[in-house]
Amino acid sequence: VGGAGMVQALGVELLDKQNKSIAKGGKGLAQLNTINTDTLDVRLKGGKIWVACDVKNPLLGKNGAAKVYGPQKGANPEIINKLEQNLAHYSEVIETQLGIAIANIPGTGAAGGLGAGFMAFLNAELKPGFELISEIVHLAEQIVNADLVITAEGKIDYQTRFGKTPAGVAGIAKNFNKPLLAFAGSLGPRVESLNELGFTSIIPITDKPMSLQESITNAGELLQDAAERTMRILKLDYWGLSEK
Amino acid sequence: VGGAGMVQALGVELLDKQNKSIAKGGKGLAQLNTINTDTLDVRLKGGKIWVACDVKNPLLGKNGAAKVYGPQKGANPEIINKLEQNLAHYSEVIETQLGIAIANIPGTGAAGGLGAGFMAFLNAELKPGFELISEIVHLAEQIVNADLVITAEGKIDYQTRFGKTPAGVAGIAKNFNKPLLAFAGSLGPRVESLNELGFTSIIPITDKPMSLQESITNAGELLQDAAERTMRILKLDYWGLSEK
Repeated sequence: VGGAGMVQALGVELLDKQNKSIAKGGKGLAQLNTINTDTLDVRLKGGKIWVACDVKNPLLGKNGAAKVYGPQKGANPEIINKLEQNLAHYSEVIETQLGIAIANIPGTGAAGGLGAGFMAFLNAELKPGFELISEIVHLAEQIVNADLVITAEGKIDYQTRFGKTPAGVAGIAKNFNKPLLAFAGSLGPRVESLNELGFTSIIPITDKPMSLQESITNAGELLQDAAERTMRILKLDYWGLSEK
Repeated sequence: VGGAGMVQALGVELLDKQNKSIAKGGKGLAQLNTINTDTLDVRLKGGKIWVACDVKNPLLGKNGAAKVYGPQKGANPEIINKLEQNLAHYSEVIETQLGIAIANIPGTGAAGGLGAGFMAFLNAELKPGFELISEIVHLAEQIVNADLVITAEGKIDYQTRFGKTPAGVAGIAKNFNKPLLAFAGSLGPRVESLNELGFTSIIPITDKPMSLQESITNAGELLQDAAERTMRILKLDYWGLSEK
């Protein structure tokens, strides 16, 4: 919890008043008294860590790790309050001893507070997954140099708008006025409303009524067939033909 | 059977040796002795009748109406043989009295011999349905003047090749080198092999895994969405864009 287990595994000492390692888990955080980062694995000292993280919740408070994600994991109100207290203590000790205030930073509440651990002990930067990966693969640069952009996802629907990869690709394609085709196993209702994001056409791969299982089993062939159909339309050179 | 009931209803007299009308059905044909066509409804005398008929079976023989279609209708071998004899008698009387030999003409075995009745008594011409309808609507002329041809059918599969409407449309479109899009509720396996007939692209309307019932219930909306997706690709002016 709070990334404590991770940083202990990476060499950081989290000690109680008796200079003994605190217990694993949310309960142990209450005993935290001293942090020793000198013992951090040396291989982590020179580098820079980026974390792909789409969650925006902070570590503490009503949108924090304990209150938002605790109930999902089956914690009752009593346990959630205790966990919130322990994470608050943990972040106070971190702020006092390491000089880093993490409690309210977006993303520190991700994955049970793992985001907090990354920021406090590893000087990591949290970035939305799409932003991070698109930087690493120089996506914008590739799109600038492309004639046609193609993306895909299992299901494209209203959720796609909220930080999913195809929406990120669409934003870049739109910026550079590039045509974008998106293939999907399944389209949600009124998916055409996403076209404004930068999609030229969002194309389903299903070629007949079929079960979800059938579409998953045959996804490769279905995608290939859908691509052929689409390229045959694209290759048509319709406007060219009509000028003849 | 043999179109006898139809032509009686249209005024032709089919009489037995006692100059009484023969009984309805295959059994009655055995009693046929005299044909009187003078009594045919006058409204049928000036016109020309074309019959849309894709079936190629003749009236008699091993590919005839009785032997091919009898078993489908639940007739046992004894009944089938009797029916074959009666139809043979019927066609002999027709040949003798009307001078028209119909027994072996393709299509005369269609619909229990209704094709034979049309040819023998009404001077009708049997044509494949697609050929007939395409002549009536001047399809070839319309396609010559079109920039883009669109067709559709519930299911497009290997059977489409054998006289189905989309294949007929494809033949004309190919002749005139026109692009042809076909929409279908369902595509059969390896439907791409039909492209050579003249299809630019065969496009399914299903936009997700769904049941056959669901696709039928929502066919209108699915077709509209598929058309929009396709037109968005067509409108892309891909080759134009890439030249900029």
